[in-house]
Amino acid sequence: MSNRESVVNTAPWSGAVNRRWLLAEFPQGEFRAENFRWSESEVLAPADGQLVVRNSYLSLDPTNRIWASGAQSYLPAMKRGEVMRGLTLGEVVASRDARIEIGARVTGLLGWQDYAVVRASAVQVLQCDPRRPVTDYLGVMGSTGLTAYFGLLDVGIPRSGETVLVSAAAGAVGSLVGQIARLQGCRAVGLVGSASKAQWITEELGFDGAINYREENVAEAIARECPSGVDIYFDNVGGDILDAAMGQLNLRGRIVLCGLISQYNSSSPLQELRNLGRFLVQRGRMQAFIVIDYLSRANEAYAQIADWLERGQLQYRMDIVQGLEHAPAALAKLFDGSNVGKLLVQINGPK
Amino acid sequence: MSNRESVVNTAPWSGAVNRRWLLAEFPQGEFRAENFRWSESEVLAPADGQLVVRNSYLSLDPTNRIWASGAQSYLPAMKRGEVMRGLTLGEVVASRDARIEIGARVTGLLGWQDYAVVRASAVQVLQCDPRRPVTDYLGVMGSTGLTAYFGLLDVGIPRSGETVLVSAAAGAVGSLVGQIARLQGCRAVGLVGSASKAQWITEELGFDGAINYREENVAEAIARECPSGVDIYFDNVGGDILDAAMGQLNLRGRIVLCGLISQYNSSSPLQELRNLGRFLVQRGRMQAFIVIDYLSRANEAYAQIADWLERGQLQYRMDIVQGLEHAPAALAKLFDGSNVGKLLVQINGPK
Repeated sequence: MSNRESVVNTAPWSGAVNRRWLLAEFPQGEFRAENFRWSESEVLAPADGQLVVRNSYLSLDPTNRIWASGAQSYLPAMKRGEVMRGLTLGEVVASRDARIEIGARVTGLLGWQDYAVVRASAVQVLQCDPRRPVTDYLGVMGSTGLTAYFGLLDVGIPRSGETVLVSAAAGAVGSLVGQIARLQGCRAVGLVGSASKAQWITEELGFDGAINYREENVAEAIARECPSGVDIYFDNVGGDILDAAMGQLNLRGRIVLCGLISQYNSSSPLQELRNLGRFLVQRGRMQAFIVIDYLSRANEAYAQIADWLERGQLQYRMDIVQGLEHAPAALAKLFDGSNVGKLLVQINGPK
Repeated sequence: MSNRESVVNTAPWSGAVNRRWLLAEFPQGEFRAENFRWSESEVLAPADGQLVVRNSYLSLDPTNRIWASGAQSYLPAMKRGEVMRGLTLGEVVASRDARIEIGARVTGLLGWQDYAVVRASAVQVLQCDPRRPVTDYLGVMGSTGLTAYFGLLDVGIPRSGETVLVSAAAGAVGSLVGQIARLQGCRAVGLVGSASKAQWITEELGFDGAINYREENVAEAIARECPSGVDIYFDNVGGDILDAAMGQLNLRGRIVLCGLISQYNSSSPLQELRNLGRFLVQRGRMQAFIVIDYLSRANEAYAQIADWLERGQLQYRMDIVQGLEHAPAALAKLFDGSNVGKLLVQINGPK
């Protein structure tokens, strides 16, 4: 028996209960409580090449609805009865891979559970800056930050003086997109669903304008807040807002298709566009992207984002719900508009 | 009085009647006969810097409907009562610009009329190859060829082995797109509206497959003819066909938005998309373009197209209607599906 195995056998997880949320049924429409089933099991011992990770935080994201659709998407289809897929941040508590040490902080698609027993290749080891809260690595210094950074800069290609319109602008990604747009010398206008969100993005984040899509005629409000038209529309929502933005797209305007949250809950989503003719005569470009395609360039983004953070040029909010048991209820906040900033669950599992 | 002016005064157009079609009313829906008004006037003498061009051929194109909408598009809005805008090929019969000689062959937006009196900057002088029919310069060696060439190669960026699907595949542009796709080593599949068009594009033009959208379930037929999915969809039509193609787009697939003929006749066009979610997870790109943006690179395309023509690698059909008086009826052929290949009117005006 090797030294490592003796370490494993005395590790603090040994014999622990693993609390898990399983995807009991594929949601039809919105997620409901009965789509999830609570389950407890014993943590299994890792095989050669595997790790045991104790999850600390779970990221909740609109794309979770895509994962749970039962269909192949940009990731393989989930199966019924599987642990709900989720991006987590945790700590390695047992390792049978020589490259990863006990105590390492890692992220990965480790699921809605206290402990994950996975191959080492399933995680990314973090080099955390001790001056930053660890939760940043699921937010501005994680895939949220990468999504905003590469979506705006690499897909949208903003030029100084242009107008960038962003939907879900008080959300985790949208709130960063507007600020990064301003750092490029652009005018940033955000679409939000409440007066308090409008106030936050303009007064604290520095957006040049805000539109409350629940209270205003969106097309009229875009014309008011974007008097020179829309050069880049960074879309997280789809639906009527996408159509309205398309209707005011400038010559060679770009639509960055990051998400379609207004469509995810429909089993037969229908996007209506009345302004595709405008898109044609303006030589528009609509480009979809998924952040996982940019993971190989992550360090380039993180270096710039860290610099902006140190200079105080990027603000963000975290919305941290306590307790894995509340994950299904927390997830609903993404779809009912009550979430501001990056939504996480602090798992608070057995130590 | 200069020599040039004396030439002008003895020119054969002098005192000629100019037969013209005016845009009497903006069409509501499809073009109708009453949208046009026949008018005859005397040809005016050119001012300094102007030319008199006698039109020989008039190009009819789906985009004519956009021009007649009464709204600003990629060109200024037409006014009621103006000579109908149209691309023509003609001969200079009087010149008060030192750079352009009498007898020069020119093209330009010279309108639905026998004679145009315009500034020299309004025309492009052609260097016609005497071995080619002059009508090629409104077709394969004109903006039709440029549209197919740059739309497919510059916007679509095909790679050998990919599948290119094209709508209106028996039309002037679509019939070239499929052939150019094959010249790049791609599989070319065309959507057409009749069995005889399907036969033409597969048996004579070499398309790998054809779909008769009037007779078949389009989604099923695309799956059959594009068994490896769609890498590039070159769209001339919009509507349900655009949606069906989007539903089978491959990873990093591209939609080249060249035209939306199914939408042009509606005063409140509605594009329904059920497959935008597929477009998102496949990281799709939809890019609109207008051929006028590529005029500065025209010679690059013409050199390649001329080479393909000489080698017998590009086939095309011309559909030439006789007599300016029949232009409104001829235009309708673009919208009712009865046109094959490039549609022109031979003006046959007074000599």
